[in-house]
Amino acid sequence: MLGLGLIGGSLMRAAHQAGRQVFGYNRSIEGVAAARADGFDATAGLDDALRRAAQTDALIVLAVPVPALPQMLRHVSAVAPHCPLTDVTSVKGAVLDEVAEAGLLERFVGGHPMAGTAHSGWAAGEAGLFHHAAWVVSVDDHVDPAVWTEVMALALDCGAVVVPARSDEHDAAAATISHLPHLLAEALAATAGEVPLAFALAAGSFRDGTRVAATAPDLVRAMCEANAAQLLPVLDHALGLLTEARTHLTEHQSVADLVEAGHAARIRYERFARPEIVTVVIGEEGWRDELAAAGRAGGVIRSALPTRDSRG
Amino acid sequence: MLGLGLIGGSLMRAAHQAGRQVFGYNRSIEGVAAARADGFDATAGLDDALRRAAQTDALIVLAVPVPALPQMLRHVSAVAPHCPLTDVTSVKGAVLDEVAEAGLLERFVGGHPMAGTAHSGWAAGEAGLFHHAAWVVSVDDHVDPAVWTEVMALALDCGAVVVPARSDEHDAAAATISHLPHLLAEALAATAGEVPLAFALAAGSFRDGTRVAATAPDLVRAMCEANAAQLLPVLDHALGLLTEARTHLTEHQSVADLVEAGHAARIRYERFARPEIVTVVIGEEGWRDELAAAGRAGGVIRSALPTRDSRG
Repeated sequence: MLGLGLIGGSLMRAAHQAGRQVFGYNRSIEGVAAARADGFDATAGLDDALRRAAQTDALIVLAVPVPALPQMLRHVSAVAPHCPLTDVTSVKGAVLDEVAEAGLLERFVGGHPMAGTAHSGWAAGEAGLFHHAAWVVSVDDHVDPAVWTEVMALALDCGAVVVPARSDEHDAAAATISHLPHLLAEALAATAGEVPLAFALAAGSFRDGTRVAATAPDLVRAMCEANAAQLLPVLDHALGLLTEARTHLTEHQSVADLVEAGHAARIRYERFARPEIVTVVIGEEGWRDELAAAGRAGGVIRSALPTRDSRG
Repeated sequence: MLGLGLIGGSLMRAAHQAGRQVFGYNRSIEGVAAARADGFDATAGLDDALRRAAQTDALIVLAVPVPALPQMLRHVSAVAPHCPLTDVTSVKGAVLDEVAEAGLLERFVGGHPMAGTAHSGWAAGEAGLFHHAAWVVSVDDHVDPAVWTEVMALALDCGAVVVPARSDEHDAAAATISHLPHLLAEALAATAGEVPLAFALAAGSFRDGTRVAATAPDLVRAMCEANAAQLLPVLDHALGLLTEARTHLTEHQSVADLVEAGHAARIRYERFARPEIVTVVIGEEGWRDELAAAGRAGGVIRSALPTRDSRG
């Protein structure tokens, strides 16, 4: 586990609870000390951790912010280039580029558990963070069936359901359901900050609508800026809807179009079905495309799919 | 209680629990039947209810949507013009205009409990809805000290804290912390509805950010459209911030300004202090302005203030 913050630290606990052997690296000695105090196997020596991973052919999990990736990947490439490799960061396209740059694409399968809180650091982590969460596992053209199977198993061991998705489709969806909400929450909080009585009257709508504005600014910037290419079109879509509503409100005293479209979409979301994916065999002809299509339709993997070799 | 929906129905339960005698009117016979089945004194006869109010000098609470007000107020004016009168609707300026139109200003003190859920109707109500909620009681220039005291007492009996505010200031704040969040939530939900994998990956940010989009469209429209004059400038402020962020993201790959402003505002909101208002005497020279200033500064009334007559 490279990085023992909220996600890496939670994953370390969850993997341990699932009976896995897990050891971790963290840059700050405070994080290492906190993990050790909780009984975990952690070090601030990156190359030590990577040597141990190479010796045991461990699955390496990148759990550091996107800006820290290039340097981290240079070490992986130098010390443990043959280990299976995954990540838990929120922008799959940017990570894919960095991994390719480092020459590690062959053994890499990107991942993204859709879970988090407004807090950060080892102390904020918990083993149950991924329970029932969607955990995206990338099915890009290059992915290796054996590594894919390992990453799927890790996610399932942590109590998540696996959503197979291509990196570019993941990033467009993440821009919509994670990065755009962050920008809207920031704009709402900042606007209220300018209106005298606003905080005094704030209730549920405001509290919910700005909850994610409490997230550390660096994390929000890292997510949004690394996914700018996918964020811009959905931000423009939302701005278009709001600007249209503004015009209708001025000219016709009505916000009907926006309100009805938003309500209908929210109701569809509440009723969104999650069929289980059961028929795909990992490694068989066309398995990646089949999984991408199933994920797009809402399908999730709840228990490990068979692989070509493992089928009886 | 005129109207036994979520707010009126909750208020009826809360007032009853506080030991008050309370009777209500509801337009739909289903709502009346549901309230009666729960043991409450309800009728579908509006003029009957108003005659009874006039006989007992009851405090009349308008708990109907803004569009239903004019007709309701004509009945009040005809049958019970001398009763003290308040309301629990979300736009104080529009209500004030209607009340003045009906010639009922003298005995009217506007109110707005800042509480709600995404549900509606009698069945969704609960006595505890107002516990610890902010309940705005208007301190406009015309308000009568005796009626003000009655409305304050009702809010306190229901477990709320009272925020004194002028109607226009209330509406600017409500536009910011309630109506704007609704429009942003609708825009977010509608945008996600257009992106294939979005619902499949949606987690906390999206769920929280769109929660209020589940509110019945008619209620959202009624609030936003009745408060258009105050909503437009704050919508424009938010659109300005988002458009600026879009430009910075395109030209400088950064959303730092928006994210830092939003985070700082949310942290200020979390630390916002709520000093208790204790020194104002209702009815003394300048009491309305004193209360408005105290409310603007975050002050709340937690137990009944003295009145000029009641002081020893």
